[in-house]
Amino acid sequence: MSHNTFGHLFRVTTWGESHGPALGCVVDGCPPGIRFRLKDIQDELDRRRPGTSRFVTQRREPDQVRVLSGVLEDGDELVTTGTPVSMMIENVDQRSKDYGEIARQFRPGHADWTYQTKYGIRDYRGGGRSSARETAARVAAGALARRVVPGLSVHGAVVAIGEKDIDRANWDWNFIEAADNPFFTPDPASVPVFSDYLDTVRKAGSSVGAIVEIVAEGVPAGLGAPVYAKLDQDIASGLMSINAVKGVEIGEGFAAARLTGEDNGDEMRMGNDGNPVFLSNHAGGILGGISTGQPIVARFAVKPTSSILTPRRSVDLDGKDVKIMTKGRHDPCVGIRAVPIGEAMVACVIADHYLRHRGQTGRVWGNRGGGQ
Amino acid sequence: MSHNTFGHLFRVTTWGESHGPALGCVVDGCPPGIRFRLKDIQDELDRRRPGTSRFVTQRREPDQVRVLSGVLEDGDELVTTGTPVSMMIENVDQRSKDYGEIARQFRPGHADWTYQTKYGIRDYRGGGRSSARETAARVAAGALARRVVPGLSVHGAVVAIGEKDIDRANWDWNFIEAADNPFFTPDPASVPVFSDYLDTVRKAGSSVGAIVEIVAEGVPAGLGAPVYAKLDQDIASGLMSINAVKGVEIGEGFAAARLTGEDNGDEMRMGNDGNPVFLSNHAGGILGGISTGQPIVARFAVKPTSSILTPRRSVDLDGKDVKIMTKGRHDPCVGIRAVPIGEAMVACVIADHYLRHRGQTGRVWGNRGGGQ
Amino acid sequence: MSHNTFGHLFRVTTWGESHGPALGCVVDGCPPGIRFRLKDIQDELDRRRPGTSRFVTQRREPDQVRVLSGVLEDGDELVTTGTPVSMMIENVDQRSKDYGEIARQFRPGHADWTYQTKYGIRDYRGGGRSSARETAARVAAGALARRVVPGLSVHGAVVAIGEKDIDRANWDWNFIEAADNPFFTPDPASVPVFSDYLDTVRKAGSSVGAIVEIVAEGVPAGLGAPVYAKLDQDIASGLMSINAVKGVEIGEGFAAARLTGEDNGDEMRMGNDGNPVFLSNHAGGILGGISTGQPIVARFAVKPTSSILTPRRSVDLDGKDVKIMTKGRHDPCVGIRAVPIGEAMVACVIADHYLRHRGQTGRVWGNRGGGQ
Amino acid sequence: MSHNTFGHLFRVTTWGESHGPALGCVVDGCPPGIRFRLKDIQDELDRRRPGTSRFVTQRREPDQVRVLSGVLEDGDELVTTGTPVSMMIENVDQRSKDYGEIARQFRPGHADWTYQTKYGIRDYRGGGRSSARETAARVAAGALARRVVPGLSVHGAVVAIGEKDIDRANWDWNFIEAADNPFFTPDPASVPVFSDYLDTVRKAGSSVGAIVEIVAEGVPAGLGAPVYAKLDQDIASGLMSINAVKGVEIGEGFAAARLTGEDNGDEMRMGNDGNPVFLSNHAGGILGGISTGQPIVARFAVKPTSSILTPRRSVDLDGKDVKIMTKGRHDPCVGIRAVPIGEAMVACVIADHYLRHRGQTGRVWGNRGGGQ
Repeated sequence: MSHNTFGHLFRVTTWGESHGPALGCVVDGCPPGIRFRLKDIQDELDRRRPGTSRFVTQRREPDQVRVLSGVLEDGDELVTTGTPVSMMIENVDQRSKDYGEIARQFRPGHADWTYQTKYGIRDYRGGGRSSARETAARVAAGALARRVVPGLSVHGAVVAIGEKDIDRANWDWNFIEAADNPFFTPDPASVPVFSDYLDTVRKAGSSVGAIVEIVAEGVPAGLGAPVYAKLDQDIASGLMSINAVKGVEIGEGFAAARLTGEDNGDEMRMGNDGNPVFLSNHAGGILGGISTGQPIVARFAVKPTSSILTPRRSVDLDGKDVKIMTKGRHDPCVGIRAVPIGEAMVACVIADHYLRHRGQTGRVWGNRGGGQ
Repeated sequence: MSHNTFGHLFRVTTWGESHGPALGCVVDGCPPGIRFRLKDIQDELDRRRPGTSRFVTQRREPDQVRVLSGVLEDGDELVTTGTPVSMMIENVDQRSKDYGEIARQFRPGHADWTYQTKYGIRDYRGGGRSSARETAARVAAGALARRVVPGLSVHGAVVAIGEKDIDRANWDWNFIEAADNPFFTPDPASVPVFSDYLDTVRKAGSSVGAIVEIVAEGVPAGLGAPVYAKLDQDIASGLMSINAVKGVEIGEGFAAARLTGEDNGDEMRMGNDGNPVFLSNHAGGILGGISTGQPIVARFAVKPTSSILTPRRSVDLDGKDVKIMTKGRHDPCVGIRAVPIGEAMVACVIADHYLRHRGQTGRVWGNRGGGQ
Repeated sequence: MSHNTFGHLFRVTTWGESHGPALGCVVDGCPPGIRFRLKDIQDELDRRRPGTSRFVTQRREPDQVRVLSGVLEDGDELVTTGTPVSMMIENVDQRSKDYGEIARQFRPGHADWTYQTKYGIRDYRGGGRSSARETAARVAAGALARRVVPGLSVHGAVVAIGEKDIDRANWDWNFIEAADNPFFTPDPASVPVFSDYLDTVRKAGSSVGAIVEIVAEGVPAGLGAPVYAKLDQDIASGLMSINAVKGVEIGEGFAAARLTGEDNGDEMRMGNDGNPVFLSNHAGGILGGISTGQPIVARFAVKPTSSILTPRRSVDLDGKDVKIMTKGRHDPCVGIRAVPIGEAMVACVIADHYLRHRGQTGRVWGNRGGGQ
Repeated sequence: MSHNTFGHLFRVTTWGESHGPALGCVVDGCPPGIRFRLKDIQDELDRRRPGTSRFVTQRREPDQVRVLSGVLEDGDELVTTGTPVSMMIENVDQRSKDYGEIARQFRPGHADWTYQTKYGIRDYRGGGRSSARETAARVAAGALARRVVPGLSVHGAVVAIGEKDIDRANWDWNFIEAADNPFFTPDPASVPVFSDYLDTVRKAGSSVGAIVEIVAEGVPAGLGAPVYAKLDQDIASGLMSINAVKGVEIGEGFAAARLTGEDNGDEMRMGNDGNPVFLSNHAGGILGGISTGQPIVARFAVKPTSSILTPRRSVDLDGKDVKIMTKGRHDPCVGIRAVPIGEAMVACVIADHYLRHRGQTGRVWGNRGGGQ
């Protein structure tokens, strides 16, 4: 991964700032003949879109995507031709305003100071390139990636918000997209808990973090290229590239450090169809950097929103001590909207490895890992 | 990162199998004029070498490194010329033996089955390419990387073994390399605890995991290239590429998800020298993917050794159910030796970003982040 | 170079088809603080624009460029911020029409059949991605690249059209942009010769090729990274990627094969300023893949336009033999408009190597090669 | 291509200096299951080896290759496992001697001055990294590449030495490897001409250049990735990376600039087998950067050896004017030995594109281009 591009054969380049005229991505290397409707892309973007509940930022962005290249129309479908697919989203909520002090102050917890220090110049309008708006481009690319691997299904869920965890016994994937679920939680019982908790946080002008879990099913065994393009490595890289993410784990993750070899190793038996079956999935679907055919399970931690209503100590461009307090729009938990973004990154990484594996070996073995 | 190469300007390619004639690395893009002694490389390799205590594998490998290219001799020093530095370690404990059943069986928790499934062929001798022996090449490369960034210092420590944690109040970096410390622990009080614990694990033929913390000091502010070459992203990628690693976190890591914005955001004040000072380092030295100049703090979780003396259910190449039990050499906690490997990966990533930053911006800002 | 991206630190990705809604490029890795006016980019595009004389295609495209990201406005200047610069040109002459037979026929000499064979699908509208319209994006990127290297100056000239050569004794760089010079020729005496010749070719419905020479002055000595990122290698790659180019040479080029060592090797003497001076430049400014500080001289050959008014034998998608004759707009010599494109590619390659050299070595040596 | 690595999926990294202990390559991404004998590699190396006739350098190097990783033995065959194949050649003719003045002088036409200027340090022993000895590693990699594409056959020939051209009417591929052919010429009649000519050149202490033609047969149609990984672009890049190469052309090459569209465009007809047949091959097997299935034809120009017995003016490290005269071993035409090197580069590029094409599209179309 380099600069603003990731992927090797399925390559995604994103561009654009929070308050510039537009943002977008170029997906290069997409196989020809992939069929999709514009609505497929738009639906994914709508899942990530701000302003959908009182628990996320109220910025109003329709996030209407346009496909500018790399496709032919066939009825209401678009078909990829193998050339770069350029997608663009125009920024609408791009108010020309006086940014005042914020143009010269470094917000704590944000990338303001590091961008200024790195580049000697900084787009201070809404966080510029470091804004989470960039992730819309990832979601658009991910919508395409999902179609590259036959049978692939990538889903995400919030499993913790601040100090509150879901009850995994209640896990219901179908509930994630329910209309009365503003949290991407798989546990219906967690909705009132999260609501009350976040209302308190929001009214206090504070914020909290979250933990998100991504599960990819239908991943063929054999994806991942040892030793510096391990599938878990590239998933970790992709998830850690998301704004505000501070930790990534696969399968048992950090808990694996506490386990014994007996408890952690996944045993195998021959299945009825003549393929091996894993008897557990502590590995999270990856061994030695290569997919086993079991579901791939990854989790990532999102830090609390840095913009809070409490005044914070910082410095400004003139080297003076200042106090900074966020005004107006305020997002008590940025982790919630990270779900479709995490899904998109995992889908892109898997699509890339699918093509790479096919390139080096000439085939994709069937999913012989099955099981559990 | 692609196949067996990582890095963009400071590029490391490794090659070699556990029981082949040799293994090594090619470090491409190393700046010219870097001075080192062969002993500097060898010392790092010796820290990682097996057979140094009863808590690590008893395989005997001298791991003598040779530098085959890219340097000129100047007295007892070697000076890089800017061309590829090829380093090679011959395998000594490469017994020609009958591998018997292991050639056709898939050890649970290992990469045997995934390599076979991916490639249709597998070097079964000692794990082949998936063996941790490959990491010797990383350590050699890391020894060079440490010299690329002036003032850089990268240290690691074991902070947990299985269910036992160190007491961070006792942290003493000097103790890490003490002769009576076989654990890379920074807490002297933890030595008897870890010893007793691991003796029990070892005698039971079992194994446990570990958590390792890497701290890099002297990293200039401004390293890291948003948004897909973030410094934390590339560190996560590098650490997750190490054998048996299942989780990576930066700064507060997963704990950040539980914090409020007030508790997690690092405030700033102007220091006496006219540079900003951070008042805390929850961010682990990275904001928006760019180094702040504070120490970079990363942790990774190593799973328990999969080779244990308890019989485990698995399958073989003929599709038959089998039971596999590791015989002979047995490593109760592979996480211990991961310390110099983790240091090497972090050093390589920082060296690469140092060169990239210098390339794009033309300078390296002084460490203005300071503080704490 | 991979898929639709080239460059390593100064990375250019282009996208778009001839008759799609738009085309463009993303320039990633541009140093921060580069100042330019939109007009600087537009002026370069206008040099390449079709429809400017009877000797080039009559397609009407205003080629108005928009800069969508990566810059801040400062008065009438734009300043790069170090993040990706996305530039877009909307296609205007994108008539919705019946493509008729052309949708199913493979034009000889074009990429129709190879695209169809490679991808199984093809954007037949105006050549799709294989159209020379893609080169507008390169020219936009090149306009930025020219500003990356202080003192760099890249100029191009047509030195032959079909069987007609210029007289190098008449070489006048200033004449290239003269209003009465529709050929980018540096030889005023060649204008009537080329005019008469091309009128004849055009009226016959035929076409001819051309040879273009690019000279880059102000290139610091030391650029180029042996042995697989040699400066001449990357220039050759960049020029050969231009549509219809069939040959590339540096300095004496193919003529060097005929020379003796005495006649070809450039001797050196110490100059008055204490720097070495080359006494000739047969090498074209590059030795061992590294710039000498002398002018870099490259030439490339452009084949004759494949679309001609004479009926040509070919086949169609149904496997039937057909005859194809181009109708309407017809470009007797595509090589003429290749001048600004060649300049752009050379500028991008040099900018990339400038940043890479600065990254690896920490400095850019002054131009000590001087001479001649 | 970057630094010392080329290729995208079939990636070759080379390392080593002329007078260091060894040189070698790492071939990463080679498909698993490729079978070869060590002799296959050695035979290619022997074709390139110095000292085989009085027309090439008399340096004595056995160039014995060892395969250190990435293979399993199966009888007298080696089988690739999909992991990196490391190959090493120890330098034998690595005399420890006093390099005297040469350590401080810059030989005209060589890379001495540019390496010194770029890196501030230089391995002056035998040209260091810029020596043609590096090309042995390419030839080893190429021997493997040839086996990656089923049915691929890559052959090269010298078509001109200095002012003497072969007669293409006499072309006989079988003669190339004949025992009485020290020139890789396909024209038996050219042997006495070249012999006399080069004897004269050699006795005069002079040197001349050469032109080499490479033909690849059995290349499937569809290889090459527009627009910045065109097959001709990557071939040009690979050939231009060879020491002393100053020009590259495909098909008609520079001559195409002189032709009309009627004479240059290759027409097509349906063949008896239902596949299109090209009626000529002016394109050299590539249209729009994608292979047509016809033979790929590339030529490159090698400049005359820079080391000659005539004293040449130059400067030294102390900034003094000096005269340099090569003593001892002297190679009147380095272009002769470039034949196996050019073959190797073309084979590596085609192998890489074969894997990339398979990755993106999922299949390799049969050779439908046939013809001629």
